Amino acid sequence: VDASSLRLYRWYYSRICQWGLGLTIAVVLLLAFIERPSSLSVSSDPRHRSPTWEPPCGLTESIEMVCLIIFCLDLAVKSYLIGWEEFRKNKWLIAYTVVISISVIDWVLSVSMVCDEKLRVRRLLRPFFLLQNSSLMKKTLKCIKRTLPEIASVILLLALHLCLFTMIGMLLFAKTEDPKKNGEWELHFRNLPNSLTSLLVLLTTANNPDVMIPAYSLNRGYSIFFVAFSVIGTYCLMNLLTAIIYNQFRGYLLMSVQTSIIRRRLGIRAAFQVLTCHGAQQAAEEHVCVDAVLEVMSRVQMKSYYRVAITTEARQYADVGYMDREQFRKIFDQLDKDHIKEHPPLPQYNSPVLQRLQVIFSHYYLTILGNAVALANVMCICTVLVLNSEKSTSERDNYIMEIINLCFILYYLFEMSVKIFAFGWKGYLSYRNNIFDGFLTILLLILQITIYVAYRLPYSHWDPSAHGFLSLWEMVRLINMLIVFRFLRIIPDIKLMALVASTLLDLVKNLRAFAGILVVVYYVFAVFGIWLFEGAIKPPPEMSVLSNTTMDNITSNFSMECGTYEQLGYWPNNFDDFAAAIILLYDVMIVNNWQAFMDAYSRYTTDWSKIYFVCWWLTSSVMWVNLFVALILENFIYKWDRSHSCSVTDVERIRYET
Amino acid sequence: VDASSLRLYRWYYSRICQWGLGLTIAVVLLLAFIERPSSLSVSSDPRHRSPTWEPPCGLTESIEMVCLIIFCLDLAVKSYLIGWEEFRKNKWLIAYTVVISISVIDWVLSVSMVCDEKLRVRRLLRPFFLLQNSSLMKKTLKCIKRTLPEIASVILLLALHLCLFTMIGMLLFAKTEDPKKNGEWELHFRNLPNSLTSLLVLLTTANNPDVMIPAYSLNRGYSIFFVAFSVIGTYCLMNLLTAIIYNQFRGYLLMSVQTSIIRRRLGIRAAFQVLTCHGAQQAAEEHVCVDAVLEVMSRVQMKSYYRVAITTEARQYADVGYMDREQFRKIFDQLDKDHIKEHPPLPQYNSPVLQRLQVIFSHYYLTILGNAVALANVMCICTVLVLNSEKSTSERDNYIMEIINLCFILYYLFEMSVKIFAFGWKGYLSYRNNIFDGFLTILLLILQITIYVAYRLPYSHWDPSAHGFLSLWEMVRLINMLIVFRFLRIIPDIKLMALVASTLLDLVKNLRAFAGILVVVYYVFAVFGIWLFEGAIKPPPEMSVLSNTTMDNITSNFSMECGTYEQLGYWPNNFDDFAAAIILLYDVMIVNNWQAFMDAYSRYTTDWSKIYFVCWWLTSSVMWVNLFVALILENFIYKWDRSHSCSVTDVERIRYET
Repeated sequence: VDASSLRLYRWYYSRICQWGLGLTIAVVLLLAFIERPSSLSVSSDPRHRSPTWEPPCGLTESIEMVCLIIFCLDLAVKSYLIGWEEFRKNKWLIAYTVVISISVIDWVLSVSMVCDEKLRVRRLLRPFFLLQNSSLMKKTLKCIKRTLPEIASVILLLALHLCLFTMIGMLLFAKTEDPKKNGEWELHFRNLPNSLTSLLVLLTTANNPDVMIPAYSLNRGYSIFFVAFSVIGTYCLMNLLTAIIYNQFRGYLLMSVQTSIIRRRLGIRAAFQVLTCHGAQQAAEEHVCVDAVLEVMSRVQMKSYYRVAITTEARQYADVGYMDREQFRKIFDQLDKDHIKEHPPLPQYNSPVLQRLQVIFSHYYLTILGNAVALANVMCICTVLVLNSEKSTSERDNYIMEIINLCFILYYLFEMSVKIFAFGWKGYLSYRNNIFDGFLTILLLILQITIYVAYRLPYSHWDPSAHGFLSLWEMVRLINMLIVFRFLRIIPDIKLMALVASTLLDLVKNLRAFAGILVVVYYVFAVFGIWLFEGAIKPPPEMSVLSNTTMDNITSNFSMECGTYEQLGYWPNNFDDFAAAIILLYDVMIVNNWQAFMDAYSRYTTDWSKIYFVCWWLTSSVMWVNLFVALILENFIYKWDRSHSCSVTDVERIRYET
Repeated sequence: VDASSLRLYRWYYSRICQWGLGLTIAVVLLLAFIERPSSLSVSSDPRHRSPTWEPPCGLTESIEMVCLIIFCLDLAVKSYLIGWEEFRKNKWLIAYTVVISISVIDWVLSVSMVCDEKLRVRRLLRPFFLLQNSSLMKKTLKCIKRTLPEIASVILLLALHLCLFTMIGMLLFAKTEDPKKNGEWELHFRNLPNSLTSLLVLLTTANNPDVMIPAYSLNRGYSIFFVAFSVIGTYCLMNLLTAIIYNQFRGYLLMSVQTSIIRRRLGIRAAFQVLTCHGAQQAAEEHVCVDAVLEVMSRVQMKSYYRVAITTEARQYADVGYMDREQFRKIFDQLDKDHIKEHPPLPQYNSPVLQRLQVIFSHYYLTILGNAVALANVMCICTVLVLNSEKSTSERDNYIMEIINLCFILYYLFEMSVKIFAFGWKGYLSYRNNIFDGFLTILLLILQITIYVAYRLPYSHWDPSAHGFLSLWEMVRLINMLIVFRFLRIIPDIKLMALVASTLLDLVKNLRAFAGILVVVYYVFAVFGIWLFEGAIKPPPEMSVLSNTTMDNITSNFSMECGTYEQLGYWPNNFDDFAAAIILLYDVMIVNNWQAFMDAYSRYTTDWSKIYFVCWWLTSSVMWVNLFVALILENFIYKWDRSHSCSVTDVERIRYET
């Protein structure tokens, strides 16, 4: 370890460098939105989609090349820092090398074909850069990998369950001589693929009452078949999957906290060793000079309040001049203590009137009053909305709405200034709640002023359709939305809701690894889907020929079977560009009505396209959603266990036993 | 405690008495199927439902009176045994008294009105008898009650989320001047109830892509609104509910095991005290005579292998003649040891040929071969099914199918007899697997013989539509189904699947309390639903007038909006009788397309009927399904922790940290 590599190491792991790398990864990933087929159209509906702006050949390619060069540099630095021996053992780095080289080769091919290639392999590989850069995601992947055998066994059981019920179903609902009794056979059990699909979709409950209706309408008894299938498959086996995944992730957070504590201990021990070498080795017992510690502390990057706390601790030993290992370890225990944010003291006013006012305005009741006013405002908006719901824009009386909102906004402004007066500027800003409030209040004020500038109040009945850069109605609408949004300020004031909301916020923090995996999965499937199905679904020919005004008539005349992609008008959900593909995949992940997509794509392309959708269903809805549930469970229980000390748990236990 | 009350106590808690009580409860609950409106019709579809058999007035009433008298007796015995002091404190018993008296009053009213009353309150109260009789269910209810505050906070947050998004949605999708852009407003955000319903249904994902299609087709950006709503509401808040409920039930199984162990300790301690009194109090230290213990053991009701084990243990001390408290406690530790079922030894054959054959036939490979043959048979049936799927009954060649099945069944019979030969009769029956196999094989054989008796093989092409008590085709179908069912024998032979399946089986054991609560909830809601909505939905008038043959034409001509109750033909799902109501409630619990029911009932009755459906959704899908998930998690994790000793967990932990 020489000085230059140390400097390189420091520089590489500095915040700016890691940020740059993250930005590069984001840029590479976001390229998919601009690349052909670009997603820069207002609507993805092929029936009324304007020709989109396609980037000129070379634009995205050059951006991509810059990113690839940055990745090359990153790889070079990383492998230099880690050394050749370690590099050979590290599978991730080797894969990184391979992915970069494939991307470069693919890029060269793509440029040489003047951007006319069909499949860009490198688009499929891009999410790897995201995976590779996050140790948390690698860890999560490892965790998932470990769970795979058990998941596989449940999925095998699920497949067996599906097959058995398919066969029994086919036997039960076989074609009979009486055409009236063939409804079930005709619609859902016509042949093997049809029956399999019906029951697979039933496993996701997406066709629940429909699939049993023809049989159930003939005989009640047939419902037992479907109920048994759903209860075993959907309720038991699917939830068992959740249990298995959760079981694997149980203690995940606790473990990672323990790991980081152990790592820190190791680091402190190593620091002690290093500092001992620097200090004089005067005695047999190892010691560390306090001066050296203080000097290091002043140069190290860390949060200021930790630095202050540790320096204060270290100063205790200043008169002795050195400390031993135990003492050295102890001063870093400060890191475990959470920094409790102290609010700045209230400003001191001399005048007794001002002091009196300060007491009034800093009182808790003011917040409650503020909440009540916000509630009243929301109720007002709600009433106006209900009254106006059937009116068209021109009939609505925006004037009164505007005046009411003005009053409320003035009150908000008053509340804000009064709070600033009572708590002082810094005190006001030290509450996160107030920042949220104040920001929205100022935004509302700006909007109001804009309205006055653009439309002038005195004319009580202006033309509502007059267009500035936004019509008046839209401005008022925006203000209303902001007011409704501002109403969220009540959450921290209701205790139970605050607890639940804070759990959710904590969740978001711990979510990064899972979100990253979700991005990777979505990206790969979207790119793959675009490659397979781009332009597969053509809008009905009449639509494109005729003008838009007669469209409604045609839709109703155009005879379409109920529940199909065409009848439901799912046109904007297609694989024609990246953004639309993502929304389509999201819709399939939500699972409801996914059979419509599966059915449409298997009609427009081949039956094999069902495999794509089933794969996506397995990855997203089965795997990822269960992972997400496991994460929420883990997070909530971790939080619960931390907030309730052991004694409370014991009390619980005793209560159980009585 | 005198002898007669002790005898009464013994008699009351004897198995037969408790069974009788359980049976009475079952009879009372099952009455709902027979009572008017009775569920004894083949189909619940009002379009082609034959007039059902209604029980004569007084039949169900007299059965019910008998049950009520039994409950009165039960209450009397219980309160006599518990004593007046305890009775006054026990809320459950007081409620029991109240419920019985209300039922009797209601019964008298009902009889005096000659069964012509509209609402039978006692039907609503009946599930109480089930609740009251199970201590496990009472405990679970207590557990749920304790979770309610947290659940309420999440539901409050959910309501806030819903309201905020409704308002923002109404602002966002307000009526505009351009009629082409009003699609979203018209369909989903027309007024406040409409918008609330749309988003509430979206919370359950039941209208997922549909609700966003009109807006999304205009502008991609609108999808953000819906995605945000679903992610926050469905994924975060709903799963948080799961986490909260699971957190409350965590350790539930462990606790109940601990509790039962503690209770048993107390019981053993008490038995020791009692036996000491009986024995001679010769010394200062307390002792128990072994003879007394042995005598008690011979009279106590318990499983025979436990009795044998404990008696053996107790005999050790026979020469000393007495044992102290510690020794007495120790002999009952035998109860903790699981009884490992020993298979009877293989029968001994003298002839070397027979011995050789026995070795061959008891080999593991025979089981594998049996599985392979079963698989081949299933494949055969599957192939025939695929080939025959489009053919009508008369075109199918049942003959070949029949011959193939005959061969397979003969093989099964061969396998069975050979196994009986190898393991002996008792050895064969000691494997549960074999019982399953053998039972199905014999059933198949009987069916085959019936076919030969009824249709005679030699006529190779008989008339397939000839009806005996079952047509040939139906018999073959039944055989095929049994064979497919028999294929389940492979599960225990695949290790991972056996683990998962055994978890599921264990689950069923622990499920009783939850299933009981489910029954209670279903019962109350079904009775309530019948009272509110019986006969609310009338089938279209044309249907009932015209004959059935022209029905199909009418259905297609009858113009109906897609996705409605009428178009989807949900007619058999109604509240016209108890069985139909249960299936309807099940369909709403599954959640998919529940908006169709809600919409239909709010159209046929009033908008307030939505409240009923939302209540049911909250109780079943939100509460009960989450409870069920919690149970599965708890069960799986309990099993996992028991099967993996602590050392394995430690290994896991270490693996995590590296």
